[in-house]
Amino acid sequence: MTTRWQDASLSADERAEALRAEMTLEEKMAQLGSVWPGNTDVNGNVAPMQDVFARGGLPFEQVRKDGIGHLTRVFGTAPVTAEEGAARVFALQNEIVNETRLGVPAIVHEECLTGFTTLGATVYPTALAWAATFDPGLVERMSAAIAEDMRAVGVHQGLSPVLDVVRDYRWGRVEETLGEDPYLVGTLGSAYVRGLEKTGIIATLKHFAGYSASRAARNHAPVSIGPREFRDVILPPFEMSIRDGGARAVMNAYVDIDGVPAAANVVLLSEILREEWGFEGVVVSDYWAIAFLKNMHRVADSVGAAGALALAAGVDIELPDTLCYSTELVELVRSGEVPEDLVDRSVHRLLRQKAELGLLDPDWTPKADAVDLDSPRNRAIARELAEKSVVLLTNDGVLPLAAKKIAVVGPCADDPLAFMGCYSYPNHVLPRFPDFGIGVTAPSFIDSVRAEFGNAEISLHAGCPIRNEDRSGLAKAARAAEEADVCIAVVGDRAGLFGEGTSGEGCDAEDLSLPGVQDELVAALVATSTPVILVVVSGRPYALGRHTGAAAMIQAFMPGEEGGPALAGILSGRVTPSGRLPVQVPRAAGGSPGTYLHPPLGGNSEGISNLDPTPLFPFGHGISYTTYEYSDLSLSANEIPADGTVSISVTVRNSGEWAGEETVQLYLRDVRAQVTRPMRELAGFTRVALAPGEHKRVTFALHADRTSFTGIDLRRIVEPGRFEVHVGRSAADLPCTASFDIVGPPRYVGPTRVLSTPVTIA
Amino acid sequence: MTTRWQDASLSADERAEALRAEMTLEEKMAQLGSVWPGNTDVNGNVAPMQDVFARGGLPFEQVRKDGIGHLTRVFGTAPVTAEEGAARVFALQNEIVNETRLGVPAIVHEECLTGFTTLGATVYPTALAWAATFDPGLVERMSAAIAEDMRAVGVHQGLSPVLDVVRDYRWGRVEETLGEDPYLVGTLGSAYVRGLEKTGIIATLKHFAGYSASRAARNHAPVSIGPREFRDVILPPFEMSIRDGGARAVMNAYVDIDGVPAAANVVLLSEILREEWGFEGVVVSDYWAIAFLKNMHRVADSVGAAGALALAAGVDIELPDTLCYSTELVELVRSGEVPEDLVDRSVHRLLRQKAELGLLDPDWTPKADAVDLDSPRNRAIARELAEKSVVLLTNDGVLPLAAKKIAVVGPCADDPLAFMGCYSYPNHVLPRFPDFGIGVTAPSFIDSVRAEFGNAEISLHAGCPIRNEDRSGLAKAARAAEEADVCIAVVGDRAGLFGEGTSGEGCDAEDLSLPGVQDELVAALVATSTPVILVVVSGRPYALGRHTGAAAMIQAFMPGEEGGPALAGILSGRVTPSGRLPVQVPRAAGGSPGTYLHPPLGGNSEGISNLDPTPLFPFGHGISYTTYEYSDLSLSANEIPADGTVSISVTVRNSGEWAGEETVQLYLRDVRAQVTRPMRELAGFTRVALAPGEHKRVTFALHADRTSFTGIDLRRIVEPGRFEVHVGRSAADLPCTASFDIVGPPRYVGPTRVLSTPVTIA
Repeated sequence: MTTRWQDASLSADERAEALRAEMTLEEKMAQLGSVWPGNTDVNGNVAPMQDVFARGGLPFEQVRKDGIGHLTRVFGTAPVTAEEGAARVFALQNEIVNETRLGVPAIVHEECLTGFTTLGATVYPTALAWAATFDPGLVERMSAAIAEDMRAVGVHQGLSPVLDVVRDYRWGRVEETLGEDPYLVGTLGSAYVRGLEKTGIIATLKHFAGYSASRAARNHAPVSIGPREFRDVILPPFEMSIRDGGARAVMNAYVDIDGVPAAANVVLLSEILREEWGFEGVVVSDYWAIAFLKNMHRVADSVGAAGALALAAGVDIELPDTLCYSTELVELVRSGEVPEDLVDRSVHRLLRQKAELGLLDPDWTPKADAVDLDSPRNRAIARELAEKSVVLLTNDGVLPLAAKKIAVVGPCADDPLAFMGCYSYPNHVLPRFPDFGIGVTAPSFIDSVRAEFGNAEISLHAGCPIRNEDRSGLAKAARAAEEADVCIAVVGDRAGLFGEGTSGEGCDAEDLSLPGVQDELVAALVATSTPVILVVVSGRPYALGRHTGAAAMIQAFMPGEEGGPALAGILSGRVTPSGRLPVQVPRAAGGSPGTYLHPPLGGNSEGISNLDPTPLFPFGHGISYTTYEYSDLSLSANEIPADGTVSISVTVRNSGEWAGEETVQLYLRDVRAQVTRPMRELAGFTRVALAPGEHKRVTFALHADRTSFTGIDLRRIVEPGRFEVHVGRSAADLPCTASFDIVGPPRYVGPTRVLSTPVTIA
Repeated sequence: MTTRWQDASLSADERAEALRAEMTLEEKMAQLGSVWPGNTDVNGNVAPMQDVFARGGLPFEQVRKDGIGHLTRVFGTAPVTAEEGAARVFALQNEIVNETRLGVPAIVHEECLTGFTTLGATVYPTALAWAATFDPGLVERMSAAIAEDMRAVGVHQGLSPVLDVVRDYRWGRVEETLGEDPYLVGTLGSAYVRGLEKTGIIATLKHFAGYSASRAARNHAPVSIGPREFRDVILPPFEMSIRDGGARAVMNAYVDIDGVPAAANVVLLSEILREEWGFEGVVVSDYWAIAFLKNMHRVADSVGAAGALALAAGVDIELPDTLCYSTELVELVRSGEVPEDLVDRSVHRLLRQKAELGLLDPDWTPKADAVDLDSPRNRAIARELAEKSVVLLTNDGVLPLAAKKIAVVGPCADDPLAFMGCYSYPNHVLPRFPDFGIGVTAPSFIDSVRAEFGNAEISLHAGCPIRNEDRSGLAKAARAAEEADVCIAVVGDRAGLFGEGTSGEGCDAEDLSLPGVQDELVAALVATSTPVILVVVSGRPYALGRHTGAAAMIQAFMPGEEGGPALAGILSGRVTPSGRLPVQVPRAAGGSPGTYLHPPLGGNSEGISNLDPTPLFPFGHGISYTTYEYSDLSLSANEIPADGTVSISVTVRNSGEWAGEETVQLYLRDVRAQVTRPMRELAGFTRVALAPGEHKRVTFALHADRTSFTGIDLRRIVEPGRFEVHVGRSAADLPCTASFDIVGPPRYVGPTRVLSTPVTIA
């Protein structure tokens, strides 16, 4: 006999309500918690992950006795094959179903930023590389493929995408982001979310919100930001990914914003997220973030008090292990200090999600399919992303490369891990399990160049390590360069966790010089008489102002396991370059923070400050082996009302001799507003494939809502006045300009505002 | 016959009201404006200062035809002697009084940060040096002396002090500030204000508010800050200087805070300043700041609209020249778009001030006293400030110095201007008038060392320039050091305007390495076998982590015209070192911004970020030739109510062999609060003079209001709970610790809150 909550003919809400009503307070609290069984030891005890936070050493039997909300990273903690992991999920879920009173399965979540973060799964390019493709359709194909693989082995939720808008390039997690423009982040983030959600995997938007704006870009440092900048720059990607992408989970940011930790921020987690945007999914805590309210932020003096704050603010589930949503909080509820309604509210949200996932169906059983996690289909997508993400910054004609004698130099040349982000399995987990291989086939740069240029004589010198100050190899590398026809310098980052790498979570930078002595290496190479092709493979933009003597410059953002062949293809001309910068490349190592989104006084202010923050390469920049011409910008109207739409059309022609794809960019400038506004901000973009000589007409349907901003009274407003429209190749190369006026009364816009700009190509 | 507004038996309010009622709209608008006759050419025409902003080339007769609110920098623009300047004021005021319909004299304002900014006036240490004295009484004596000199020659208002709390050491104007702690800034700022105001000079608090928090420390760049940090860190010095200091004028900041320019910010200039704090004085614009609303911030599309915005927000007077408070604004008033009440409100405030100054008295005549602007009294104060401001950072025993053969090296050794701030007359004005001397006698460092160590053999080498990358002198300087018994390396800044210097307005830094190749010079000197005494004379703290091999380190902050003898006295032991750091000295050149005021996650977060922002020398640090011991910390109570006071007493003993002055510092830590709070913040301080072996009991009367902060609802609250009390030598050397609890209900505190902590010494 099925109980009411198992009755699939009822709505998810009804089933969740029925199940909750059957639960004891302890059972409800257990649903709001989680267990990290990836950390169990050989005896089945949950091993200590981080002593201060985790429930170390408790037997699984004990921690699951009242049920479990989430199972944390069954795959993604220690190396297991797909089969082993699936079997483990199978066993754990069976124990939960069979050995607990109500038998409610757990939601199984995993990391999946650069692919399913488990042994042997495809390592896609890092998020900053997807951003460099400016290709939402491709990102959606990637995330759908990731989701299929996770679904096959019993995973329900992925802790991606990262929607933090880059504010300071020094932050270690820049590589995980989609760049510095909220519209680009929101558009690509929504695409990623759609790919996951349409495949049945819950997407988790993180980190909500403000994490990227931490002081001096130090991980978790306090965030100094006002409500207007927060709403206009930080929040839009989240709103887009919920309203346009359909995301069903949100994860809080670790940081405090103007003194209020996100995990305790009721305005953010309840008023904005739920009341303004109508979000009905689940808010999960970032790992240990609730305990941080006590230990780090010091806004609570016990784990129970921390739990009470988070629960009241709107954090539904505690990850990765239950610490604060536990006995102390149960006591606070029993004593009446914490209303039980708050518990019920969160339990309902979770159980509704379990109902939607089929976990409450009477015939539910855990899955344990075997699956090829690095299938040819996956690799093809990874390759396409890598190819489209490589940004050609400059080229004096040395590329495509036809040299016979090539000196490959640099610490990133012989290391496939330099192509992988911090949240890839090889860089995130394997350092703690050195006996395992990286789990996938990933040719390094030198492997790929040797394969691509089979007839060339190719030498290899590291020159220096990635981050130590060892100069002993500099001279030898320079000599090798001197003796070659061309030198390819491959420099940049190696991702890692908490200081293990030069990029990644907890690997922040004091300035934007290349790590270690790599700037000296590049300078020594450029000082030779040999043309140098500088290839930067990094998780953040580095200052390249010292190296403009290079014959060509390429920026790649950790292009994943197919990054080597993709880069080699760009060098040889097998692939036409088409990537664009989702972040500026700065000129000087100091002077952070600063991005392209600034009012006049945020830019170069000659006569006011001696410092010039103008980047070496602007946002959106990227050249190719072909060229594109822009013409005939036209607008459907010169005046529109505050709820109108203007069509903006431009003709783009491939004026070179290579087939390629141009990324057409539309920027908007508010000529005068009631508050300071950016000199330009991205309002639309699209890739256009063009054969040599071919032209196409690109049309953007720009709604007046897309001109809106947070006004002087902190309400979002469409303000009448003149708006300039600039179309072109980058934020600083905008050959076509026009303007339109918004006329009539101002319009306050709420949660139904139009968030994106549709594009048609004819 | 005197008119009503001339009747000294009436109140200033009544006289202002009577005068305003007699004025035409044009006459009222003229009172809200200013003229910069210092910029008049030889024909008496007002010459262009900055083409885009100033009323270039108009005859004075024309610009004063309806009267004038303020006369701008009659002395401080081109070199004039005290006599010439006084005569010029006399002539201009006479023309205004005799040739305008109502004959209302102008208020004459001047700059006076490091002394009256005019030719031949004493150049006191820069503000950051006053802060290093931790001596409010001395600062008040200085400002009273400045005020007497200005008053004697017909000046009414000084555009000082700068109350911006340092947030980023890279900002060019750090030298003009009183450091990074709001309580230190507020206490010394109030003292400065008292000295001016008690002598009859209107003090002008600037820059209101947020200027120091500009993005990447670039001058005028946008400010990302939330309302809590703004209220808790940026605003308190202004509130203290108004309520405890009696300041009668405030100048707006150039910047926009979260998108709202200060000059158009009604919340700041009217609600907080006037309604919350009860300020009744006058708000003057920073120079051209109203025009910036149109040209830079782009929140207005005409000068009239810019004027209307500023006037409505609460900017009463436009400086330095009338541009926006002019005919366009008159038309907007006439057309009814701008209420005439707004004009009347500001006119009334100004005229009330003119009445208070005696300018409306029937017998008023301009003053034209001759005065010695660099009197022995002034120089004695300048010397005392300089001596007390020098901070001894480290000393391995090399000091006091007894060497016979001294190599003085460094680009700041032979330049007395390196001792003077940007707003000193020699650095601010004279670069545009190179034919004049610096106007005062100011021995350089080398002059002073030669005088101090008459019997020693002293060599001098620049080694390198202050800011160019000329390495040609490094080797020679290192050889000179090698050959001496001891080397004194004198490095740092030369102040200037807008890129003329390495410190000062518009002279921002990309990072905190010493300017030019001075770090290389110091490294080369430290690498010799000769002990190096590193003397940094700078306007901001520089990263000294590379130079810990120096035998001793001294930090001086532009100590003024008496800086040379003061430094020489410290070196010889004639003066016992007693200065303390009002800013941290960082370890590394990157990693900005960051100050000592941070919650746990703003500090070193091992395991979370690889970066460690711990400074090389903490806030408040400074050693001496003697030592001090702390003991017997006691509190008058362990519990106080939310409006109570706790007395905190500690015994300080001079345990060394030199008489000296110790700066006793009291820090507070809120153990748990509803928002994140600093790990420690200065809550009280005092200098204590102690003979060898002597001890004294220092008692702080800490009111519960001093624990208040801006709570979760943005109201200022005294929150019950535990507070730790730490007393000692610096923010990181606090040998005595205790705690007290605030008990009972929380208390919201308003504008009557207690702002300072009285100290008694017995």
